[in-house]
Amino acid sequence: MLDPAIAARLKRDPNGLVAAVAQQYDTGEVLMVAWMDDEALHRTLTTGRATYWSRSRGEYWVKGDTSGHTQDVKSVALDCDGDTVLLKVDQHGPACHTGTRTCFDADVLR
Amino acid sequence: MLDPAIAARLKRDPNGLVAAVAQQYDTGEVLMVAWMDDEALHRTLTTGRATYWSRSRGEYWVKGDTSGHTQDVKSVALDCDGDTVLLKVDQHGPACHTGTRTCFDADVLR
Repeated sequence: MLDPAIAARLKRDPNGLVAAVAQQYDTGEVLMVAWMDDEALHRTLTTGRATYWSRSRGEYWVKGDTSGHTQDVKSVALDCDGDTVLLKVDQHGPACHTGTRTCFDADVLR
Repeated sequence: MLDPAIAARLKRDPNGLVAAVAQQYDTGEVLMVAWMDDEALHRTLTTGRATYWSRSRGEYWVKGDTSGHTQDVKSVALDCDGDTVLLKVDQHGPACHTGTRTCFDADVLR
């Protein structure tokens, strides 16, 4: 169970989720944004493997369990209003399910 | 009005919002995460000033209009599933309303 002292600082959305930004720890690339409930954050903090809640599939999702493209977690920080965590990770292979390094490579708006 | 070709690619939450990650363009620091509706994204793309939707105040919010800590937008990219934009910005002064450089400086969980 997530440390109650951490849980008390989270500001969850109506679905009980906070946003999670994954950033490559050494290059600074923003790799992807996904979602976590308390249990996903607990697993991420205790296992060092980035674990998210899949809103589309309705299940926990250990990044890389299917693709092999794992994220080793170097650090986790909560933002000032408690609705987002920043994970610094070491991303193995592409972060995006489309095969690009990050999820932001394909669609530049400006 | 937001370009319909962009609007068609957005996957908004039930409140009509997408997440927006602001990253310092040269250092790679993740500064903050906020929220945008179509109009906020339109204003950001067309003015080059990061403009968000404040969920707590229920109004548009041009970053820095009150604090002077503006964000000049260098680029905007949409992620693979259309629910998050990544802004590369030049942040003037602290990004966080608490006075720290980023919103992730104060509460390290791991």
